[in-house]
Amino acid sequence: MGMVSYLNGTFIDTGNLTISPYDLGLLRGYAVFDIMRTHNGKPFLFSGHWKRLYNSAKQFGLKLPVSEKEFAAVLKTLLRLNGFRESMIKTVVTGGPSADGFSPAGKETFFIIIEDLKTLPQDVYLLGAKVITLEHPRECPSVKSTNYMTAMKHSRERMKRGAIEILYTCGGKALEGSVSNLFIVKRGGLITPKEGILLGITRNFVIKLARKLKLQIEERAIPIKELLKADEAFMTSSTRNIVPVVMVDRTRIGPGKVGPVTKAILDAAERYNESY
Amino acid sequence: MGMVSYLNGTFIDTGNLTISPYDLGLLRGYAVFDIMRTHNGKPFLFSGHWKRLYNSAKQFGLKLPVSEKEFAAVLKTLLRLNGFRESMIKTVVTGGPSADGFSPAGKETFFIIIEDLKTLPQDVYLLGAKVITLEHPRECPSVKSTNYMTAMKHSRERMKRGAIEILYTCGGKALEGSVSNLFIVKRGGLITPKEGILLGITRNFVIKLARKLKLQIEERAIPIKELLKADEAFMTSSTRNIVPVVMVDRTRIGPGKVGPVTKAILDAAERYNESY
Repeated sequence: MGMVSYLNGTFIDTGNLTISPYDLGLLRGYAVFDIMRTHNGKPFLFSGHWKRLYNSAKQFGLKLPVSEKEFAAVLKTLLRLNGFRESMIKTVVTGGPSADGFSPAGKETFFIIIEDLKTLPQDVYLLGAKVITLEHPRECPSVKSTNYMTAMKHSRERMKRGAIEILYTCGGKALEGSVSNLFIVKRGGLITPKEGILLGITRNFVIKLARKLKLQIEERAIPIKELLKADEAFMTSSTRNIVPVVMVDRTRIGPGKVGPVTKAILDAAERYNESY
Repeated sequence: MGMVSYLNGTFIDTGNLTISPYDLGLLRGYAVFDIMRTHNGKPFLFSGHWKRLYNSAKQFGLKLPVSEKEFAAVLKTLLRLNGFRESMIKTVVTGGPSADGFSPAGKETFFIIIEDLKTLPQDVYLLGAKVITLEHPRECPSVKSTNYMTAMKHSRERMKRGAIEILYTCGGKALEGSVSNLFIVKRGGLITPKEGILLGITRNFVIKLARKLKLQIEERAIPIKELLKADEAFMTSSTRNIVPVVMVDRTRIGPGKVGPVTKAILDAAERYNESY
């Protein structure tokens, strides 16, 4: 946990940052958020994160109290004050406190917390990970809301089954993970869903990287059957980066090892990040 | 707002009751809750509320830190200390703080807040209310979770259209309101949905009252068309009680006045509540 946070226009000790039990973010799940990481101490893919936070808030009728420029300036100060080598930046905007606990009063709660970046164990990237599937059409998937109730409900089962992520499926299609996007590799090209999902910032970054690598990319629905027969698969997220997937439920993907295309993307991302 | 609340085993000043920004109830919508009211200072339909809270928590893998008996004792103390004539009792259990903001640590946050009971304006019960419909299949409808994101998102529109409630529909069926259950009256009998909804405590209470009044009751799906042609309609909730509905979107229900069967139920409920 960082030492200094930002709450409604003020820099405060993180220990003093508390939320009212009357906040609609808590009582009614009325909140959107963003998680960003730094590379070389700088917020990574800042503009993409800002735009998505802005759009998520707008879709939910929530107002952001800062402009993009002000947000960047606040982050700069926070990163300096907290002084981690690399940071995770958590930004949350909620419907704020409500006298009757139901009607939004238009007084949004806006806070930013900085944390020391924790990454997944290196083994995950070298050996690949397992994911489990769950039939689950998400509500308002294009908004990064705080509704992770299904992921939470199944988190114990996920851990018991040794899986790193829950992959949501709907009507025979593989959509997205609870906190990450899905890519599969087929005949050297990439396929990733586009509809009915949250368009991750790292997803968009990987698409750009793949274009630079001259890989073919299709943005379209992925039938579960196609996923299970894919040559390779990986999932992307801002904090987890690019996670090779070698097992889906009880089916091995490809040879069950990190494949060459996934490896090439991981390498290209690392080169990009190092020089960020 | 009451003066004394209960948080994780301790009675505390309500002003000091705050929630960590790391609480999974806030960050990941991992929380269930209950709202109960008193009649003559006593928690109304206590056992029904307790059972539903217990079941909601269980379905989400959350543990309640009190037994039914302990919960009753805590409420008795809280009601005495806060001293309102009639109270609203809000009980919330969340996944608690999590170091990584995602994995439940099994340290639930449990709090109870007492508020001075606020009821709807008397006109609503005398003249009836308007509701608007919205196609929306709820996620895990049988759990009283804090996920009201759709209701929140549409709350401004609801208020603008002069409606008291959003009635969720799905595939041509009228299901339930965002915070209340639906009943219609047809040829003197009651019809109320049973599947795909939250089984409200007041819903169950009204069914019992109707049986005492020798009214016929069907628990089954209600096509929207049937609702719009109903003789009467009303919606039930613990804090709002029985709200006559005389307008759905732009369609008047029956003659657009509070009907005789709704009136009979309201009267029977009032007699029951007075002697509680």
